[in-house]
Amino acid sequence: MPKTAGIILVGNEILSGKIADANAAYLCRELRALGVDVRRIAVIPDEVELIAREVAEQSHDYDVVFTSGGVGPTHDDVTIEGVARAMSVKVVRHPALVGVLEGYYRDRLNEAHLKMAELPEGAELLGGEPFRFPTILMRNVYLLPGVPEIFRQKFEALRERFRDRPFHLKNVYVRIHEGTLADHLNRLLADFPSLLLGSYPEFSNPEYKVKVTLESRDAGYLESALAEFLRRLPEDALVRVT
Amino acid sequence: MPKTAGIILVGNEILSGKIADANAAYLCRELRALGVDVRRIAVIPDEVELIAREVAEQSHDYDVVFTSGGVGPTHDDVTIEGVARAMSVKVVRHPALVGVLEGYYRDRLNEAHLKMAELPEGAELLGGEPFRFPTILMRNVYLLPGVPEIFRQKFEALRERFRDRPFHLKNVYVRIHEGTLADHLNRLLADFPSLLLGSYPEFSNPEYKVKVTLESRDAGYLESALAEFLRRLPEDALVRVT
Repeated sequence: MPKTAGIILVGNEILSGKIADANAAYLCRELRALGVDVRRIAVIPDEVELIAREVAEQSHDYDVVFTSGGVGPTHDDVTIEGVARAMSVKVVRHPALVGVLEGYYRDRLNEAHLKMAELPEGAELLGGEPFRFPTILMRNVYLLPGVPEIFRQKFEALRERFRDRPFHLKNVYVRIHEGTLADHLNRLLADFPSLLLGSYPEFSNPEYKVKVTLESRDAGYLESALAEFLRRLPEDALVRVT
Repeated sequence: MPKTAGIILVGNEILSGKIADANAAYLCRELRALGVDVRRIAVIPDEVELIAREVAEQSHDYDVVFTSGGVGPTHDDVTIEGVARAMSVKVVRHPALVGVLEGYYRDRLNEAHLKMAELPEGAELLGGEPFRFPTILMRNVYLLPGVPEIFRQKFEALRERFRDRPFHLKNVYVRIHEGTLADHLNRLLADFPSLLLGSYPEFSNPEYKVKVTLESRDAGYLESALAEFLRRLPEDALVRVT
């Protein structure tokens, strides 16, 4: 079975329009390149109950789930608590994390810092080294921080875990409109029902009117579908294939 | 009661990392400026059943819902059908929309184009004029197209419908870390429990370590909270207030 993924962005700052998220777009690109099928992104507030509900649902529905944000030391960092509630476990303080924090903060260590040593009971710690924070994995849920640089560093360290059969993609740019194209796409899907077929119109591009994307995990199937699609296209409709 | 909103992006192209969405970030900014509280963004595949489920849930939970994408003439445009299923109504062809399409396409009009004359039974048409497409409103769900330029044009035409009591915002930039700041934030929230308080660390900014956001719909309450927060901050911690 192909691996599926869900993404949960915990972020009042996104919902209130203060920042535009960069982590979901990055993660979708990376996971797709690895052959993972992202099925859902949810952006939700920094609220324990809402986090718990979304995590419980996505953790059940998909093979892996990634959360972004809400893992710092302040009052609005409630992702750990939300994930724990989703899994019906307690939040506990982990000795290894206390050790990392003691090494880093020394005599400046306070209760707020120690909040970062908490995790859902039964969680695993991945990677990390002295002075560097590991990633928390609770069952199939990876808890990543919201700060984009650190989000990416942590994902990079984990990425080979997620590699699956890759998707193969062909982009066909045409100079006919979607209304004319629709029938061709329907006939193609009738012959190639497993094809992943997308149609994206452009309204202000002088070069082409629609970008058609053909995708499959089976390279041969994709080539056959592409050949058939090109063969049936009206003369002069094709701009290019990439 | 403050107006709440949900946003649904229907988009395989976002989930598969082909494009980064621009509509949700735009809409969050605009709605916040109007005083609307966005409570959830969901990015879901172009699949009728998933659209129906998400629309049913958000339409129940929030005052208004916006969908983006899936309203063109091709096989992957299934938002109308998803919204209809969410509301347990049929998809019907609307005479006024047929008229707009006839005027535009003339003798090129085909069945695929006529798909764009379909809507959930009982939906209203907002705005529009000859040759321009109206926006479909089904109960509290506004159906907007995914193409960013058109998405914005359509939202601009509707925006005054959503104006509510505005949020007032103050940003306080400090040069202390979140670990030190956490206790100040907790004490502030104890005294101002209705304050919307966010804490956003910066790891590579030489000017400040954390941006703290204070928000309220009540300008006086916000000013009092801000004064109290600044009064209690350690000396030299403040960089600036905007």
